[in-house]
Amino acid sequence: MDQVLDLHQEDFDVTVEPGVTRKALNAYLRETGLWFPVDPGADASLCGMAATSASGTNAVRYGTMRENVLNLEVVMADGTVIHTAGKGRRPRKTSAGYNLTNLFVGSEGTLGIITKTTLRLYGVPEAMVSAVCSFPSVQAAVDSTVQILQAGVPIARIEFLDDVMIDACNRFSSLSYPVTPTLFLEFHGSEKSLEEQVSTTEEITQSNGGADFKWATDTEERNRLWKARHDAWYAALALQPGCKAYATDVCVPLSRLPQIIVETKEDLIQNKLTGPIAGHVGDGNFHCLVVLDPNDQEEQHRVHLFTERLARRALAMDGTCTGEHGVGLGKRALLCEEMGPMAIQVMQGLKDTLDPKNLMNPGKILLPAEL
Amino acid sequence: MDQVLDLHQEDFDVTVEPGVTRKALNAYLRETGLWFPVDPGADASLCGMAATSASGTNAVRYGTMRENVLNLEVVMADGTVIHTAGKGRRPRKTSAGYNLTNLFVGSEGTLGIITKTTLRLYGVPEAMVSAVCSFPSVQAAVDSTVQILQAGVPIARIEFLDDVMIDACNRFSSLSYPVTPTLFLEFHGSEKSLEEQVSTTEEITQSNGGADFKWATDTEERNRLWKARHDAWYAALALQPGCKAYATDVCVPLSRLPQIIVETKEDLIQNKLTGPIAGHVGDGNFHCLVVLDPNDQEEQHRVHLFTERLARRALAMDGTCTGEHGVGLGKRALLCEEMGPMAIQVMQGLKDTLDPKNLMNPGKILLPAEL
Repeated sequence: MDQVLDLHQEDFDVTVEPGVTRKALNAYLRETGLWFPVDPGADASLCGMAATSASGTNAVRYGTMRENVLNLEVVMADGTVIHTAGKGRRPRKTSAGYNLTNLFVGSEGTLGIITKTTLRLYGVPEAMVSAVCSFPSVQAAVDSTVQILQAGVPIARIEFLDDVMIDACNRFSSLSYPVTPTLFLEFHGSEKSLEEQVSTTEEITQSNGGADFKWATDTEERNRLWKARHDAWYAALALQPGCKAYATDVCVPLSRLPQIIVETKEDLIQNKLTGPIAGHVGDGNFHCLVVLDPNDQEEQHRVHLFTERLARRALAMDGTCTGEHGVGLGKRALLCEEMGPMAIQVMQGLKDTLDPKNLMNPGKILLPAEL
Repeated sequence: MDQVLDLHQEDFDVTVEPGVTRKALNAYLRETGLWFPVDPGADASLCGMAATSASGTNAVRYGTMRENVLNLEVVMADGTVIHTAGKGRRPRKTSAGYNLTNLFVGSEGTLGIITKTTLRLYGVPEAMVSAVCSFPSVQAAVDSTVQILQAGVPIARIEFLDDVMIDACNRFSSLSYPVTPTLFLEFHGSEKSLEEQVSTTEEITQSNGGADFKWATDTEERNRLWKARHDAWYAALALQPGCKAYATDVCVPLSRLPQIIVETKEDLIQNKLTGPIAGHVGDGNFHCLVVLDPNDQEEQHRVHLFTERLARRALAMDGTCTGEHGVGLGKRALLCEEMGPMAIQVMQGLKDTLDPKNLMNPGKILLPAEL
């Protein structure tokens, strides 16, 4: 089940089986001038990305899986097979009945098993520019982000790394970025529009005290510039040899980002935890990669309490306990706090209706009923 | 219940009560540099637009209600109130549990009553350009559309009017457009990016035999240029004084548009019906406005049969029986054909779970169970 099926170039859509990964699809598309942009970092399977509502670095421009899945083939708990938008259908928009597609996108395997996914494709941009810029404060970096979006710059990626993460990347990849909050940016478009996007962005970052604005156009130079961002996960792990990293994510309205990041950094320091922060800041979404010793149970407990405080901090700021990692087992209680008992009851009703024997990824998303 | 609540300018979001219409919200936002772009033509209420998953002319750039609703307050059949993304929450993305928001968007009032809607806002574009271009054939107009999208032009609106519709508009508004398939276009962006968007588009339309490419930048001139499109509904009605118009819509993959439009025009001629065609062609979505005499039952029957053939033609081309008008009462049987019995059973299961006594807009979307 690893075949790319039914590529329709003129219609910008393709259907894939569960074994097809993001990179495999983009390799398959190489000669067509099309690509599938959603990029969670890992080379995940696309059906898995649909099941978990994946997003990642360029969701600010291209959306998440929610916006890019046109149809799903799903095997239901009773063995029947449905197509969430009807078999073989692939209109770019529809008002035909309940939106089953987006009920299954992000359902984490708890409502059915996705066996085919029809995706929306995009034209490969004529050109790309990457840029990096250092800021005196988290506030200055986030203010720049808001202003760039307000100015209508169709930015493709805008990634935030905090000083701890930049320091880790400098050590890991022998780089010499200033150890301050930093934005990594990527622009997609025509040559001419890129000039304008870059100059508007540079103006905005400078007016917010951004320094060392570096940009690059050719692939090699762009990769060098973004190396720190690409290696962030490994750089975080390398901070304490032999350690593992526990990644958590939250998402808040843009204006709340500076406060939640500053408070979270204070929390880490107070609790003697190392947790570099990297964020898809154009969406208000960020990750904290808490480094921990897998043999130190007391530390694991402290990390657990920290992630709960982080999630509750996001909830108190009109945000969500998870912007893209999902609920799984770990955030079921937080989901109840986030949604309230009535909405949870609706979710449980949907689960009970579609999977009455609780066969599909049991125990995930929803807490078992109290006895 | 006609208040605009909780405008968050920096976060690009706002919450509205059911009485707030699209135009009222945009008037409210006038001084902020923000706007809500989804535009179904009519000055509909925004909660109603959420309930019906409205879209319209600029969905090709800004998406439909599905992509622009962040949260809903819904009164359920049992009187409980839920917030589909948790009370007061407005993150730009979330992976927290089942996507209740998009289950209610487009549910046509059959699952609950929407009493508040939180919407995503956009920066008002720095400048706008409108354009009109005539084509020798439907194929040439659609080929141009596909190529404009492939070239990555971030076009804001791309509307198709067929020869019958252009003729009606010419008569109604005393215009003199060539009576051929025509595209009405609108571009949003910075001054510089608009120059490039327009010149790329003009090049593409010319290479497809497009003629009379006219464009305008200032508001008055733009309105004059688009007058035909804006008046299309009234122009269609005026074709036969005293008549009414029956509007239907379908949506197919882009590449199938020329064939379905040509076949539909032949069908109209064969069945002696007048049905000008207007389409949101960037999405593969088009309307046929069939003019009919409300007192002529035989004609009404012919129109009914025509709309069923049109929907089945769309279904045979991997499309949907409704791209934006919804199912209501009229397309319930077509929805069954489109989705297949198993997916319909899933929809019925959702309805039965959330509204076991069938109190919410009963009879819409799903056919009653056969006795």
